[in-house]
Amino acid sequence: MAEVQNGGEEKNVVVFSAFKPQLFVQAPKATDAVQFYKTAFGAEEVNRTMNPKRKADQELPLILSADLKLGDSVFSVSDLSDDAEKIDGSGCVFTLATDDIDGAISKAVSAGAVAEGEVTEDEVAGRVGKVKDPYGYVWVISSPAAKTTPAAEVEAQTTV
Amino acid sequence: MAEVQNGGEEKNVVVFSAFKPQLFVQAPKATDAVQFYKTAFGAEEVNRTMNPKRKADQELPLILSADLKLGDSVFSVSDLSDDAEKIDGSGCVFTLATDDIDGAISKAVSAGAVAEGEVTEDEVAGRVGKVKDPYGYVWVISSPAAKTTPAAEVEAQTTV
Repeated sequence: MAEVQNGGEEKNVVVFSAFKPQLFVQAPKATDAVQFYKTAFGAEEVNRTMNPKRKADQELPLILSADLKLGDSVFSVSDLSDDAEKIDGSGCVFTLATDDIDGAISKAVSAGAVAEGEVTEDEVAGRVGKVKDPYGYVWVISSPAAKTTPAAEVEAQTTV
Repeated sequence: MAEVQNGGEEKNVVVFSAFKPQLFVQAPKATDAVQFYKTAFGAEEVNRTMNPKRKADQELPLILSADLKLGDSVFSVSDLSDDAEKIDGSGCVFTLATDDIDGAISKAVSAGAVAEGEVTEDEVAGRVGKVKDPYGYVWVISSPAAKTTPAAEVEAQTTV
């Protein structure tokens, strides 16, 4: 969904509804990391999505993404599993939510970013694309409607 | 300034007024990076602080920090100069603003972070401390009153 700003003069406007740093930690340490950010900085967990793929030799379920609120901002913590694509250079990526994923990627690529793989569609994460900017940072472009589980629900499920 | 939350039961509460990812890029590319994030993602520059230290052989002034607004969030872009402390592991750090820098560092260290150096006092940045969390991420704790120059002022100065 593109909105026109600046009196209608700007073309190809992609509107982002959310910007979120995503911090990867070596699996299965994301649970500990979430606890650390709560204790150290008073972050509040607002939701958690578990990774539905669990290998036979894997003792703990992995965190796909746990959203933590800190002040007015939100960042997320994720387990970096062995079979996940390696995050080049940095353990941190930035996620942007928009209804116009293809438009966003196309605009970023025109500006000098490199598309990383194809846009994928996933039951949990929805449609997701990825670009690497000229400075080495990875931006994950996803649909705002990605399904996430409120933290309270996760706790209820895990205590059953 | 510590505020008491949760009906006064919680002790040692440190309140953060801002959370901001800070993306370092190899100097002097921060100017290009700011332009890239504007073009690629429609980010809006809200202020820019130049690095007051300029070496004789350095052609361009370096950006200490340029704040970019994307949706409701702000991130900053900085030139990583040769004499700056190296950012271990990741080119991205997270800044937290609070009036209680010592309390924040002490609480983070109690939770398992490692203090990086002493708290410094700087004309431009104000009081600044740094901790590395158990997962390798660096958090810069600074006072909210750090002096920054609005972008418009920077432009006016550079066009004179």
